[in-house]
Amino acid sequence: MPNVRLILEYDGTDFHGWQKQPGLRTVQGIVEGAISRISGEKPKLIGSGRTDAGVHARGQVANFLTEASLACGEWRKALNANLPPDVVVLRADRAPKEFHARHSAVGRVYEYRVLRREVRSPLDLRFAWHVPRPLDISAIRKASVLLRGVHDFTSFSASGSENQNPRVNLRRLGIGRSGELLLFTLEASHFLWHMVRNIVGLLIEIGLGRIPPGKTSQFLEARDRRAVPSAPAPPQGLCLIKVQYPRLPLSN
Amino acid sequence: MPNVRLILEYDGTDFHGWQKQPGLRTVQGIVEGAISRISGEKPKLIGSGRTDAGVHARGQVANFLTEASLACGEWRKALNANLPPDVVVLRADRAPKEFHARHSAVGRVYEYRVLRREVRSPLDLRFAWHVPRPLDISAIRKASVLLRGVHDFTSFSASGSENQNPRVNLRRLGIGRSGELLLFTLEASHFLWHMVRNIVGLLIEIGLGRIPPGKTSQFLEARDRRAVPSAPAPPQGLCLIKVQYPRLPLSN
Repeated sequence: MPNVRLILEYDGTDFHGWQKQPGLRTVQGIVEGAISRISGEKPKLIGSGRTDAGVHARGQVANFLTEASLACGEWRKALNANLPPDVVVLRADRAPKEFHARHSAVGRVYEYRVLRREVRSPLDLRFAWHVPRPLDISAIRKASVLLRGVHDFTSFSASGSENQNPRVNLRRLGIGRSGELLLFTLEASHFLWHMVRNIVGLLIEIGLGRIPPGKTSQFLEARDRRAVPSAPAPPQGLCLIKVQYPRLPLSN
Repeated sequence: MPNVRLILEYDGTDFHGWQKQPGLRTVQGIVEGAISRISGEKPKLIGSGRTDAGVHARGQVANFLTEASLACGEWRKALNANLPPDVVVLRADRAPKEFHARHSAVGRVYEYRVLRREVRSPLDLRFAWHVPRPLDISAIRKASVLLRGVHDFTSFSASGSENQNPRVNLRRLGIGRSGELLLFTLEASHFLWHMVRNIVGLLIEIGLGRIPPGKTSQFLEARDRRAVPSAPAPPQGLCLIKVQYPRLPLSN
């Protein structure tokens, strides 16, 4: 049965996250509905991972099996004609039958946007966390050095992550700027639930001078979410940029 | 009577433009309402110029006269507490009594964003014009050279611009890129109604190869909107970036 891989972009504002839930508008539910209208099948769409309500994606990856005799270019067109304005298929490829959007993934890249200025921004309202106070970037950098690499990130995961390996190789935790935006880029083999938002939440508290950066190692060692006094950063600043796979033979 | 100058940012998506109209949600109407709730007065808010429905601003300038005894920093706070999420006061200053947001302005800077890629973008939906076909940028550059400088821009104005001087010094028409976005930056002493959207609409038709760039001079010389075969670019790509004034003594 042909296996179709999709790359998706969505504005998460009006979705209750990725995962299908009865009676709620979710990305998985909307895309499965569109596939079903085209193929007449009851597809099961596998995503590379869940995104929370309000979280965006520029490169979410998903796959589904289908008997429908559409070429992949036709799948993209047909799906986009059946999807609402806030979600789109960037690309559809025929994937090998063993390809699984979650299990085959070897890395994920997220970006988190923080708006640093005194007043809120109507234009960045849906796409950034507004932090109206000055931030000590060097303190944030100090803490980020302690977070990079292989650690048990249990202290930065929400309950519900229990069946995931808490040891994560945080390969990259970059801090960049673009105008009034502070941009965090995080790359890891996998992320625990709420891990990016919990990390950014702590880094901003550190930047505000409320927590010393050196405490970060203690928080990691505690392996307990309750050991970390900061709240998760809000969802609207977060975007799933890319999911990485081993080089796979893909065909159109 | 104190004269207060405001710098405003707004997401134009859910506004029927700047100018107050009975029964419609407009930026001028919403901001006047907020001033009125604070001062108890019936203010007349003067904008540097109108923006159309769907057009955004990062630096719209407006002024109003008031007897209310608030310092300008307090005006900003009080207004932002009374404004909806899609409009914000970036700055409030005490202006000289002769300051008039429209008459005193000596320049305006607009940016127009075009998204160049095959599929639409949920994340840029409100903030760019999606052009899904390849563009010949060198043809666009050729035409833009012909538009720069002092010309009678009647052919690029909508009816309703009659009481404005049609001779405009288009001091800048820059073409830049940022990822998949093509960014047009236009600066002039003043703009006629729909002038930016009409210029960008023509440049994109030229980029698509439907109109030769050399025709641009003929269109200008015609001094007639009907001589130009292209439609205006849609409003959501347009943003008023800045309004320029002679150096003025401002106080908080």
